[in-house]
Amino acid sequence: MASLSGLCSSSQPLKARQALFRIQKHPIPYTNGTTLLIKTANTRVTLSLTAQCVARDAPADLSSSSSSSSSPSRGYFGKLQNKSLEKDPRALWRRYVDWLYQHKELGLYLDVSRIGFTDDFVKEMEPRFQAAFLSIKELEKGAIANPDEKRMVGHYWLRNSKLAPNSFISSQIDNTLEAVSKFAGDVISGKIRTPSGGHFTQVLSVGIGGSALGPQFVAEALAPDNPPLKLRFIDNTDPAGIDHQIAQLGPELASTLVIVISKSGGTPETRNGLLEVQKAFREAGLEFAKQGVAVTQENSLLDNTARIEGWLARFPMFDWVGGRTSEMSAVGLLPAALQGIDIKEMLAGASLMDETTRITELRSNPAALLALCWYWASDGVGSKDMVVLPYKDSLLLFSRYLQQLVMESLGKEFDLNGNKVNQGLTVYGNKGSTDQHAYIQQLREGVHNFFATFIEVLRDRPPGHDWELEPGVTCGDYLFGMLQGTRSALYANGRESITVTVQEVTPRSVGALIALYERAVGLYASLININAYHQPGVEAGKKAAAEVLALQKRVLAVLNEASCKEPVEPLTLEQVADRCHCPEDIEMIHKIVVRMAANDRALIAEGSFVRIRSEQTFIIGSGACLTIARMRKVREPSDTDRNYLSLNYETSSLAHEGILAAFSLQCLDVDFLSS
Amino acid sequence: MASLSGLCSSSQPLKARQALFRIQKHPIPYTNGTTLLIKTANTRVTLSLTAQCVARDAPADLSSSSSSSSSPSRGYFGKLQNKSLEKDPRALWRRYVDWLYQHKELGLYLDVSRIGFTDDFVKEMEPRFQAAFLSIKELEKGAIANPDEKRMVGHYWLRNSKLAPNSFISSQIDNTLEAVSKFAGDVISGKIRTPSGGHFTQVLSVGIGGSALGPQFVAEALAPDNPPLKLRFIDNTDPAGIDHQIAQLGPELASTLVIVISKSGGTPETRNGLLEVQKAFREAGLEFAKQGVAVTQENSLLDNTARIEGWLARFPMFDWVGGRTSEMSAVGLLPAALQGIDIKEMLAGASLMDETTRITELRSNPAALLALCWYWASDGVGSKDMVVLPYKDSLLLFSRYLQQLVMESLGKEFDLNGNKVNQGLTVYGNKGSTDQHAYIQQLREGVHNFFATFIEVLRDRPPGHDWELEPGVTCGDYLFGMLQGTRSALYANGRESITVTVQEVTPRSVGALIALYERAVGLYASLININAYHQPGVEAGKKAAAEVLALQKRVLAVLNEASCKEPVEPLTLEQVADRCHCPEDIEMIHKIVVRMAANDRALIAEGSFVRIRSEQTFIIGSGACLTIARMRKVREPSDTDRNYLSLNYETSSLAHEGILAAFSLQCLDVDFLSS
Repeated sequence: MASLSGLCSSSQPLKARQALFRIQKHPIPYTNGTTLLIKTANTRVTLSLTAQCVARDAPADLSSSSSSSSSPSRGYFGKLQNKSLEKDPRALWRRYVDWLYQHKELGLYLDVSRIGFTDDFVKEMEPRFQAAFLSIKELEKGAIANPDEKRMVGHYWLRNSKLAPNSFISSQIDNTLEAVSKFAGDVISGKIRTPSGGHFTQVLSVGIGGSALGPQFVAEALAPDNPPLKLRFIDNTDPAGIDHQIAQLGPELASTLVIVISKSGGTPETRNGLLEVQKAFREAGLEFAKQGVAVTQENSLLDNTARIEGWLARFPMFDWVGGRTSEMSAVGLLPAALQGIDIKEMLAGASLMDETTRITELRSNPAALLALCWYWASDGVGSKDMVVLPYKDSLLLFSRYLQQLVMESLGKEFDLNGNKVNQGLTVYGNKGSTDQHAYIQQLREGVHNFFATFIEVLRDRPPGHDWELEPGVTCGDYLFGMLQGTRSALYANGRESITVTVQEVTPRSVGALIALYERAVGLYASLININAYHQPGVEAGKKAAAEVLALQKRVLAVLNEASCKEPVEPLTLEQVADRCHCPEDIEMIHKIVVRMAANDRALIAEGSFVRIRSEQTFIIGSGACLTIARMRKVREPSDTDRNYLSLNYETSSLAHEGILAAFSLQCLDVDFLSS
Repeated sequence: MASLSGLCSSSQPLKARQALFRIQKHPIPYTNGTTLLIKTANTRVTLSLTAQCVARDAPADLSSSSSSSSSPSRGYFGKLQNKSLEKDPRALWRRYVDWLYQHKELGLYLDVSRIGFTDDFVKEMEPRFQAAFLSIKELEKGAIANPDEKRMVGHYWLRNSKLAPNSFISSQIDNTLEAVSKFAGDVISGKIRTPSGGHFTQVLSVGIGGSALGPQFVAEALAPDNPPLKLRFIDNTDPAGIDHQIAQLGPELASTLVIVISKSGGTPETRNGLLEVQKAFREAGLEFAKQGVAVTQENSLLDNTARIEGWLARFPMFDWVGGRTSEMSAVGLLPAALQGIDIKEMLAGASLMDETTRITELRSNPAALLALCWYWASDGVGSKDMVVLPYKDSLLLFSRYLQQLVMESLGKEFDLNGNKVNQGLTVYGNKGSTDQHAYIQQLREGVHNFFATFIEVLRDRPPGHDWELEPGVTCGDYLFGMLQGTRSALYANGRESITVTVQEVTPRSVGALIALYERAVGLYASLININAYHQPGVEAGKKAAAEVLALQKRVLAVLNEASCKEPVEPLTLEQVADRCHCPEDIEMIHKIVVRMAANDRALIAEGSFVRIRSEQTFIIGSGACLTIARMRKVREPSDTDRNYLSLNYETSSLAHEGILAAFSLQCLDVDFLSS
């Protein structure tokens, strides 16, 4: 049993602590008397005393480990500081009590006692934290916090529009919230109806990254069992995935509200999703505009298209809200409201968390405590992964949400001074106790390359619905036991952990959790001196993707030209590469050709369709190009071929000896998309 | 454009290669002529020549980095070997061609060219691989591969029962497959019906870990848009999550087939899920046994219960199949078959992959190639994470499936010789290109603590269903571009990657992917000399959880005793801990009490309910215990209280002055569960 609180059969006598009883100067909320009194006994007012006590009581190895007074720097802690963990259960209990953070109104606790930071470390970090508090304060006032994009970073204003730097922004926020609430209310009540006069029953959200992960997480966490509208997502440019979503909707497409979310309207995945959905609407004889909603920046291509085509509604995305922090903007609020989730409570929870994380005293600021732990545990350089383990099914996607928020914000090559730092903090996880049957084996015994964050939810079921599976024990007791058991077992093996506890999964607590991590990321970014608000690597990936598509077009043009000759001209891969003027891209050209073949887009007449260094003749053609594709010895077009052609193109002539077909591309009906 | 194949504007002239044209001795399957001819030109037969060519052509830094001849050992590569990557596009193309693995019948490619292993490394690893091949061969013959559990490891036999070590096991396998197919067919056809005579419409699978992850992955990958039965999962002991699943079923509970999957029947989460589902059945007036199916080891508690109660069907789990490799046993096959997935094709794909991964030549064995890459990339000690990026929505759960397979198998404290090694390989990922808008920013620019595995699917849509969003470009072309762009962008920044390509997501290719990774894990485990087939850390977590529950019972007993005194005896946390005889567990006791309070299980009369070092009086009681709970100054029971009580207990007397209620616990109707 001694292992429960963190191992050790140590029975070292506990020195009597000199407890001070003082009235707190400014009342800090606590959930209940237990911890109130615990906190009264030794924190805040008695801060320095506590620190001394811990230092005095601590075993020798802990004291020695924190004796260095060097300032924290890259890799310093990992290399030089002995990170031995406190193992005496009673000392751990004191550490738990000393550091436990509690927010009564939010019903939220943060336990950092199982991260082994020393008092010296805290002292050393203090000035950095003060600088970080200052920088976040500037940011909240409207400073350009995203210098290379020359943008303000204002997602905190969304939760309290009075904080916005000017009244224009304040009223933008208020008006949008009002508009979202009204629209959602009208859709749910049936005041806004489908073209055929019925209620909307489904929401299809088309968006990716920040436009999908937040709404997905919130839907899974908070949607009622039978929401007024069900929510589906197209969050990728995978044709099969899109087809699956549309097939699942079936005839309900006619009562589906489609929300298209893209700041610029130029995100390729979102654009493609929109085009695919519009095609499905056309094929079903439905008018997309009457069921389409745009969430986008004012006057973006998407906004203009939606306005001109007369979509059902448009809601603004603000320049000063980044994708990964957009859950409290229309991006997140609209889908949530349509599912009957109380978005004002979400905002209230976030706002309360924002307030409390403005406190510049480390112990009273849960975001700062998180940032402190991250810095300690990962040496300020991401040397350890953060495994997020919510013990609650409905919070399954929290880790994926945090993965984006943390990794996209912190994973940066350069710091603000232009030094190459390759920063970051890796996040992964699913849910407990399910994950215990998956990878916790490795967490406990394997590579020590992580620290854990447990998310605990105190309330199991609504009042009056619990029951006991066996005497004195409910189903949820097992969940609790698994969480605590894992926390103890990990700590016993020297693996550190943070525990965040909320009373219930409610709009308020979810809003608070989102804000907590947003603020922790902001503070931590300041500690490690990086810009948390841009994502140059994502742009680089997009650029590389565009180059692949450009190369594909050139390959198709070359192949097409060759196939149009009489007789068809055989080409080797090298020749194709040469004619594309990029011999160094031969590998990519190979991949392009293989993929075209797999999708029946390079029609294969016989044997191998690209020959390299052999004597065989071959025929190659591109089925998906604008010009005439001529084939020799081609098989007669099958029904599948005909279907394929007639589905996509107006077939102007059918295949006969030597000529397969001439295509004219179907006109795209959304102009902005080719820009 | 030069960056596409992996960066670099190098225009270094390509030395003419002496290509050899020989007929392959044993025909190896290839998908199409392109690579067939490429392969003919330089692999297999010309293996040694190729290796020399690469070494000769390689830039100086690559050659020098591989000049050491020391044998691979822990941390050796990470520390001593300069892992510079080939950057010349033409040399990379040669490397791609030299190493590309292809399996025609399966339509599967494996590209390891973007992992920077050297020829010297391959040579050094060769004897270890031969040993690994030998050990996996022994295992397939029925050796005790899991020594501490004294078990054979036979999941390979499931795909080819002729390989089983004896005819008893062979016929067990064949009979089970036959029984699963027949049962699923009968349920789908309506030969087996619900108690009320209708078709079964839903499957509710109750299981965790290996009993859930495989079926979840396969369902997401392969279930048709409108499967004959829909599949839901209870894979945790979260009461709210269970309630949600049951609420989603609603009246369809009456046509729900419940599959309970647990080898022993003792897995607490599964047992709890079963109890909760049985309660839902009782409350709906349904007879569980007529809709229950057990998948469990013969004569386990679950098996016996199911037999005695006359459940609809029972299918065996075999002693020699571990949870994380059970997808091809009844565990995975039954849910798959019920969704109309062709399980024989899954088995055929796995069997083909098993066969090909028995080849003892490294280049012809894709599992060995994977293991080689993992060893190189993570220094054989898990020094880098493996990020799995399937670019296909339906493969979203593949990374989570692999997370379990890899981490639970490889994450071990001790090697087979008893040395402490803390081995493992961290796996995470979701899907591309969605993840590009989440964490690929960090992968590209941030901490270099990973290597990537791209999963590519060549076929976008069924034949005849594709169309072009813009001239020459389909929706899937973007997905392809994003994958290739990311692969290039990562490599350009020195981040290594593997690419696994399949033609389509079919039962055959999914079976092959599962087998590929099972075999790679087996081989890699042998390379690093650990037991891949046990999970002692999971047991430790379970034990710790059981201790928490045991402590909770003691706490409840102590609180109850105190609350039954007249007057009620006030206790401090310390006193509770003392009376539980575990003062060192005070923190856990605190957590238990807080949680009980949050769930209305410690009824709070006034103020704080646990007092520490203060003069206030307090009252504490446990609402969820077997004895009489007496309260003073308690509020009158509310309707909620009454509901709560009447729902769970037979209330033998209602609350009045000083006495709240006496409860008698509802009899549990499944005896084996309390064992």
